Amino acid sequence: MSATGSLVIAGLGPGRAALITPEVTDAVARATDVVGYIPYVRRIAPRDGLVLHESDNRVELERAQHALSLAQDGRHVVVVSSGDPGVFAMAAAVFEAVEHGPDMWQDLDIRVLPGITAMLAAAAAIGAPLGHDFCAINLSDNLKPWEVVTNRVRAAAQAGFAMAFYNPRSKSRPHQFGEVLAVLRDELPGSTLISFAKSVSKPDEDIATLPLAEARDDLADMRTVVIVGTAETRRAGRFVYTPRSLS
Amino acid sequence: MSATGSLVIAGLGPGRAALITPEVTDAVARATDVVGYIPYVRRIAPRDGLVLHESDNRVELERAQHALSLAQDGRHVVVVSSGDPGVFAMAAAVFEAVEHGPDMWQDLDIRVLPGITAMLAAAAAIGAPLGHDFCAINLSDNLKPWEVVTNRVRAAAQAGFAMAFYNPRSKSRPHQFGEVLAVLRDELPGSTLISFAKSVSKPDEDIATLPLAEARDDLADMRTVVIVGTAETRRAGRFVYTPRSLS
Repeated sequence: MSATGSLVIAGLGPGRAALITPEVTDAVARATDVVGYIPYVRRIAPRDGLVLHESDNRVELERAQHALSLAQDGRHVVVVSSGDPGVFAMAAAVFEAVEHGPDMWQDLDIRVLPGITAMLAAAAAIGAPLGHDFCAINLSDNLKPWEVVTNRVRAAAQAGFAMAFYNPRSKSRPHQFGEVLAVLRDELPGSTLISFAKSVSKPDEDIATLPLAEARDDLADMRTVVIVGTAETRRAGRFVYTPRSLS
Repeated sequence: MSATGSLVIAGLGPGRAALITPEVTDAVARATDVVGYIPYVRRIAPRDGLVLHESDNRVELERAQHALSLAQDGRHVVVVSSGDPGVFAMAAAVFEAVEHGPDMWQDLDIRVLPGITAMLAAAAAIGAPLGHDFCAINLSDNLKPWEVVTNRVRAAAQAGFAMAFYNPRSKSRPHQFGEVLAVLRDELPGSTLISFAKSVSKPDEDIATLPLAEARDDLADMRTVVIVGTAETRRAGRFVYTPRSLS
């Protein structure tokens, strides 16, 4: 344990080990402590000299404060996120803790290491549905009013963006995704292609693409990334892509 | 050369070798042919048995057709993109060529391997400016009308999205980015933080964040990713982040 600690916020990608960048692998190999949500910490192989700190869901700020305290004590800490840490994951929570924490936390050695976020792995498995301008929207209303979610979906559809939805549906909010589908049907042709990518890059990966008119809300759950095409999105054999050009 | 060829469309990430995923490294190691824009092909180490095919900018469709023809002839082809192949890069061009090409191209063994796209590496270097809902917009009007670009920027600002701009400015269109800044100033407070990330993850990486009111169009060029915060985006020490929550 050195006198000056460090904090790395690292993205493990969506699941497949071959999607973890070498710099993240290297950071984990040098860590004294790994901090994160239980299923992400379980992706790290235990070894002598490495302390694994698992925490439950929805305690992001407390987890960030814990990680910063460890770094302040001279530990070399890696906070692990699924996907990319900057996309609906731990990086923003750490900086929120830094902003409101002790001044010395601002001087800590902190680095963010990017990762393959779920929508990019999903898009690659589908073809190239995000091949034109697109938006990423977290459909959970845990941290913002629900009407902000539906307003953003409507604005994105009207402006011709493709869309990727994170956290589309959960047991605690089973009906909201149906409202999102209704907004999309208001704004886009029923033939617009929508893809449901479940457990992307994991052994149980399951991907289905269908026209918006046939989409049902029960095709999505918390393990699903939903990708909505534009009016130009089309099939090329077994693949789906959004053309680069718009005339 | 086997009887059945293959085509992999692979993302090399934004520049730093430690950002290339192991599955991309593996695909390049197995390739007989690497096809791509000159500076991306130059990132691949030459070796016996590997043919490097460099092509110029703005010939994406011809390059895709060439790669598909090689795969049809039984070669194992990797088309290399910078960043992620599905984000303003080669994957959409390949599927466009598949759609309009000979039927047999639809049956080829084609896979897309995701990569770290520039906006994620830029965001990581800045802090977490894309920590809330965000859009990715290609500011080039080579492939879409200019008013579509400004309309999308305006819609995204009005709906409260953070934004990442690809290809913000080039020698052939030096004045358009100033129009984009004017649209942003119409819609967002002058205190909104905007970051210019040049040559992200490369030795000459250069990142500057300033309030929108002080932004100038000459801070961007073709090597720059521009990230525009929301009204909530703020500093935490030397970092910039967009809070996860919106009350």
